[in-house]
Amino acid sequence: MSTVAFIGLGIMGAPMAGHLLAAGHDVIGYNRSPAKVETHVARGGRAASSAADAVRAADVVITMVPDSPDVEDLALGEDGIYANAKPGTLHIDCSTIRPDVARRIAEAGAERGVRVVDAPVSGGEAGAIEGTLSIMVGGADDDVAAARPYLEAMGSTVVHVGPPGAGQTVKAANQLIVAGNIQLLAEALVFLEAHGVDTEAATRVLGGGLAGSAVLDRKAAGMRARTFAPGFRIDLHHKDLGIVTAAAREAGVAIPLGAHVAQLVGSLRAQGYGGLDHSALLLQVLQLSGRAEDEEPGRTES
Amino acid sequence: MSTVAFIGLGIMGAPMAGHLLAAGHDVIGYNRSPAKVETHVARGGRAASSAADAVRAADVVITMVPDSPDVEDLALGEDGIYANAKPGTLHIDCSTIRPDVARRIAEAGAERGVRVVDAPVSGGEAGAIEGTLSIMVGGADDDVAAARPYLEAMGSTVVHVGPPGAGQTVKAANQLIVAGNIQLLAEALVFLEAHGVDTEAATRVLGGGLAGSAVLDRKAAGMRARTFAPGFRIDLHHKDLGIVTAAAREAGVAIPLGAHVAQLVGSLRAQGYGGLDHSALLLQVLQLSGRAEDEEPGRTES
Amino acid sequence: MSTVAFIGLGIMGAPMAGHLLAAGHDVIGYNRSPAKVETHVARGGRAASSAADAVRAADVVITMVPDSPDVEDLALGEDGIYANAKPGTLHIDCSTIRPDVARRIAEAGAERGVRVVDAPVSGGEAGAIEGTLSIMVGGADDDVAAARPYLEAMGSTVVHVGPPGAGQTVKAANQLIVAGNIQLLAEALVFLEAHGVDTEAATRVLGGGLAGSAVLDRKAAGMRARTFAPGFRIDLHHKDLGIVTAAAREAGVAIPLGAHVAQLVGSLRAQGYGGLDHSALLLQVLQLSGRAEDEEPGRTES
Amino acid sequence: MSTVAFIGLGIMGAPMAGHLLAAGHDVIGYNRSPAKVETHVARGGRAASSAADAVRAADVVITMVPDSPDVEDLALGEDGIYANAKPGTLHIDCSTIRPDVARRIAEAGAERGVRVVDAPVSGGEAGAIEGTLSIMVGGADDDVAAARPYLEAMGSTVVHVGPPGAGQTVKAANQLIVAGNIQLLAEALVFLEAHGVDTEAATRVLGGGLAGSAVLDRKAAGMRARTFAPGFRIDLHHKDLGIVTAAAREAGVAIPLGAHVAQLVGSLRAQGYGGLDHSALLLQVLQLSGRAEDEEPGRTES
Repeated sequence: MSTVAFIGLGIMGAPMAGHLLAAGHDVIGYNRSPAKVETHVARGGRAASSAADAVRAADVVITMVPDSPDVEDLALGEDGIYANAKPGTLHIDCSTIRPDVARRIAEAGAERGVRVVDAPVSGGEAGAIEGTLSIMVGGADDDVAAARPYLEAMGSTVVHVGPPGAGQTVKAANQLIVAGNIQLLAEALVFLEAHGVDTEAATRVLGGGLAGSAVLDRKAAGMRARTFAPGFRIDLHHKDLGIVTAAAREAGVAIPLGAHVAQLVGSLRAQGYGGLDHSALLLQVLQLSGRAEDEEPGRTES
Repeated sequence: MSTVAFIGLGIMGAPMAGHLLAAGHDVIGYNRSPAKVETHVARGGRAASSAADAVRAADVVITMVPDSPDVEDLALGEDGIYANAKPGTLHIDCSTIRPDVARRIAEAGAERGVRVVDAPVSGGEAGAIEGTLSIMVGGADDDVAAARPYLEAMGSTVVHVGPPGAGQTVKAANQLIVAGNIQLLAEALVFLEAHGVDTEAATRVLGGGLAGSAVLDRKAAGMRARTFAPGFRIDLHHKDLGIVTAAAREAGVAIPLGAHVAQLVGSLRAQGYGGLDHSALLLQVLQLSGRAEDEEPGRTES
Repeated sequence: MSTVAFIGLGIMGAPMAGHLLAAGHDVIGYNRSPAKVETHVARGGRAASSAADAVRAADVVITMVPDSPDVEDLALGEDGIYANAKPGTLHIDCSTIRPDVARRIAEAGAERGVRVVDAPVSGGEAGAIEGTLSIMVGGADDDVAAARPYLEAMGSTVVHVGPPGAGQTVKAANQLIVAGNIQLLAEALVFLEAHGVDTEAATRVLGGGLAGSAVLDRKAAGMRARTFAPGFRIDLHHKDLGIVTAAAREAGVAIPLGAHVAQLVGSLRAQGYGGLDHSALLLQVLQLSGRAEDEEPGRTES
Repeated sequence: MSTVAFIGLGIMGAPMAGHLLAAGHDVIGYNRSPAKVETHVARGGRAASSAADAVRAADVVITMVPDSPDVEDLALGEDGIYANAKPGTLHIDCSTIRPDVARRIAEAGAERGVRVVDAPVSGGEAGAIEGTLSIMVGGADDDVAAARPYLEAMGSTVVHVGPPGAGQTVKAANQLIVAGNIQLLAEALVFLEAHGVDTEAATRVLGGGLAGSAVLDRKAAGMRARTFAPGFRIDLHHKDLGIVTAAAREAGVAIPLGAHVAQLVGSLRAQGYGGLDHSALLLQVLQLSGRAEDEEPGRTES
C-alpha cells in the first residue's frame, strides 16, 4: 500500500479520497478549509497542514481543484508540490483544466523528477460516491500504468487516451458534447410541451432510438419536473466551455454548435443561474419561447 | 388475422410488411415501382395494381412514403384511401410528415369514417429488418389500441404519446436531437484528431459518461473510419429538419441549436452530399477546419 | 392623369396614396376599416365600397397589405382584382410577400390580361410620409416602365432588379441584412456599456468608419435611450424573416447568420415584444447578459 | 514641433508617419526590417537602430504593431519604451490589442511617469494614406488632449471614448460589427444570385434604405466581382474577433451573432484564406451553398 497525498477534498475529492482509504492506502488529506480535512480524518485518513506538508512523505500526489490557476499554483508554487516532492513522485491531476496548462505542468514536473499524469473525471458527485467515474488519462505509458491502480479505485472506466494533456483534451470534448446534448434536449422538451405532447411518454420512446443518450436518461426527468439542484453547476460548465473554445481556436477547429452553446451557457450564468445544474438550460429555452412566465426557478448566487 | 393494405414497399416498408406477413396477416402490397411488389408477392404477400385497389378489401391500411404531399395525395386523392376504404378502416401512417398535415389527415379521415393514427418510426433500415423500431404514436385511445398489434409486429418500443399529430411531433423532436448530437460528436472528433488524441480510446471513455449516446455508440466508428454509406440520408434529415423548424416557428418555440444544425445539414446537402448518411456532417466540420484536403469522400447525386 | 385604385390605406398606404393624389391622379381608395377610407376622401380621394368596386374603373391598381395570403385573396379571389379588372390593367403590389407567391400572382395576372409588378418598399413610415421610399421592383421591362411614374411619386429610389418576384427577393435580402445589422449593433452597445464606455462618443466614431450603417445612424440613439416605439414592428420583421429563411431553403443557400437572427427575433416576439420596434433586439441582448434587471420596457400586445 | 518616435512602419504605420512628417514634426522611425526605415528616411524622417534608441530623444512615442504581445514587449521590455523614455513622455498606441492589456500598459506607464493613450484606428490602408482614419481614443482627459494634434494629423475623426482601454474596447466593437455586416451582405448576395436577381441593381436599392452601410458601399462591388485582395486580412480580423469574444466573456455579455461570425472567420482562415480580404467571407457562403464549384479564388499563405 502507498502513501497518497490528496489535495482538494471538496464534493468530488472527498469521496474519491474515501475510495483510496477503502483500498487500504495511507491517505494524507489537505484542503484550504480545515473542516473538510477533519471529515477526512474521521474516515480514517491523516491530516496535513499544508500542501507541502502533505506532499513531502507521499509516493503519489492527487489533486482535485477547481481551475487551471489552482493547479499551476499547487504544482509550481514555492510551497507547492514539485518543490517539495521526493524524486520519482507520481502526480495525478484529476482537476479539469486547460490542455496546454496540463502539458506545461507535465514538462515542469519532468524537470524536477516528478512524473505527471492528467486524469480528469466524468460522472459527477454520484459517480464519485459510487466509484463509477469515467477517467480519461493523458501521460507517458509507464506513468499511466503506475497511476492506474489508484484511478481504478475511484472509477469504473479508466482509459489512456494519449500523451500529457490528452486527458484534458478528451474532457474538453466531453463537456462540449454534454452541454450541447442538454441544450438540444431542452429545445426538444419545450417544443413537445408547446405542442401539448405527453413528455413522459415522449422521453420513453426517444430514449429507445437514435436520440437516446445518457443526458436523456439522467436529466430529462428533472427537466420535466423543473428541479435543477446540482449536480454539475452552470458556473463550472461555463469555465469548461471556455477551455473548449480556446483549445479549438488554438487548433483551428470549427465548433459552430459548441461555440453557440457556450454563448447560451454564458447567458444563463450572466442571468444569475450559475449555481444551478447545467440541465437548467431548459429555463432559458422556456424564457426565449415566452413560456417562463409562471415558473420561478429560484435564482442562486453564482 | 386481418387483411392489411401496405402502401410503400421501399427500404423501410418492405421489411415492415414482411413482419406483418410473418405474423400471419394477409398483406396486400402496393408500390409505384412494380418490382417492389413482386418481391412482396415472392415473400407470400398479395399484389395490388393501385392504392385504391389495395385499400378496398382491407381492414387496416399502412402507409410508408417519403413526405407530406405523398401522404396527402394517398389519403385525400380521388383514387386515394379515404375515397375507397370501407367504413371503420384503420389507417396507420408510418411516414415522417408535418404534424399539422397529420392532424389535417386525421380530421379528413374522421369525416369519412376512417380512423387515423400517426405512427412514425425511428431505428433505420436495421431496426426495420430486425423488427426493433421505436414507434411514436399519435391518435385517439381506441384507435391507438386497435393499431398496437400491428405496430408491435414491426417495432419493439411502441409508445402512445398524445392525440393525432403527436407522433409526428415527437418524431420531429427526435430528428432535432439526432442531428444535433451527430454534429456535436463530429465537432468533438475533429477537435480530438486535431490535438493528436487517440479517438478510439477517447470514444470508449466518452461513451461511459454523461457524453454517452446512441449516436456515439452507432456512428462514432464509422465517422472515425470515414464511411458514410446510408443509413439515414442527409436528404431525408434535411426534409425532417424543415418540419421541425416550421413546427417550432408555428408554436413560438426557440430552437437556437436546432435551427443552427438545420443550416449545417442544408449546407452539406447543397454541396452534393445529400445521398450520404447523416453522420457525414463530420465531412463538413473537417472542411470548415481546413482538414478535408486529403479526404475524398465521393460525392453522390442527391 | 390616371385612375388609380389603392387598396390598403394603413400606416404606409395612406401617405403613399396621398402622394399619388398630390401628383394629380384620381385615386379610389379601399380599406377594410372604413375610417381609413374617410380620411382618404378628406384628402381629396374617392371612396370604394369593396376591392372589386375600386378596381373596375381603374387603369392602375396598387395593393399595400400585410402578408402573402392577403395579396393572394385580393388578386385571385372571386371578388378580387383579376376577376374585375379591365384588360391591360397594371397591378403594382407594394406589400412584402413571399417571392414564390409574387411569381404565382404574376402568372395568374398574365392569364387574365393583367400586368403585374412586385414593388415592395423600404424606408418605413417616415419614408412613406416624406416620399423617400426605396422601392425594389420586379417585373417585365414594359410593365416596370409603366409602373415607374407611380412609384417615383412615392419613393426617391426606384430600381428595377429583375423579373417578377425579384423585387420581393431583394426585399427579403434587405430584411435579412437589417435584422442582422440591428442585432450586431445591439451586441456592440451592450458590450460597450458593460465595459463602461461612453456609447454616445463610441457611436460617433463607429459611424465614421467601416462599421457605419443606416441602422447605426437611425437606430443607435433610440437604443441607447431605450425607446422602442415603432417604427417597424418585431411582428412584421418576424414574418419577413420567415420569408427569407423559406426562400433560402428553397434555393439551397446557406444563411447561417440570417437563420440565427431569425431565431432571436422569434424569441423576442414569443416573449411578448412583437409590438415594439425591431431595435428592441437590444432588450434581449441585455436580458441574455443579465443586465435587464432594472429596465422595464413595457411589453405590448403583439 | 515635436520629436516623435514612430515604431512600426508597416502598411499602416508608414503613411501615418508620413502625415506627421508633413505636419512638420521630427519623426524618428524604427522598424524591425530596416528597408522600411530607409523609406522613412527617404521621406525626410530620421532613423533609429532600436526602439530604445528611437524613444530616448522623443517627446511622443507612437506604436503601430500587430498584436498584444508586441505592444507589451515594446512597452515593458528591458530595452523597451518605458525603460528608456524621458519622464513625461506621451505614448500613443495605435495598434489593435486587448483592452485589458491596454489598461495594464497604461498602469505600468503611470508608474514610470509615462502618459499612455490607446488610439486604435479604423479605415484601412486607404484611410491611412489619405489621412482620413477614424481614431477611437482611451485615456485620461489631459493625455488625450495632448495626443489630439498628432492624431488629427493622421485621421479625420478623433473621438475620446473613455478611460485607458476604452479605445480598444470600441475598436473591438467595431470589428464585431464589421465582420457581422460583411457576413450578412455575403449571405444576401449569394441569396440574390441564387434567385437570379441582378445584384448590381439590388445593391443600389439596398444601399438607399435601412440596409445601407459602409460595408455595402465599399465591399459589395468587389464581392460581386470576386476580387478579394486585401484590404484588411482575414488573419487580422480573426485575431481581433478573438479579442472581442474574450472581452465579452470577461464582462458576461452575450454576443450570439458575434461568436457565430467569429467561428465563420476562423473557418475561412483554417481553410487557407487568411491572406484574403475579410470580404472573402463570401467565398465560404458560396461553398456552404454548393455554389463554389467553378470559382477558384486562389488560396494564399496565411
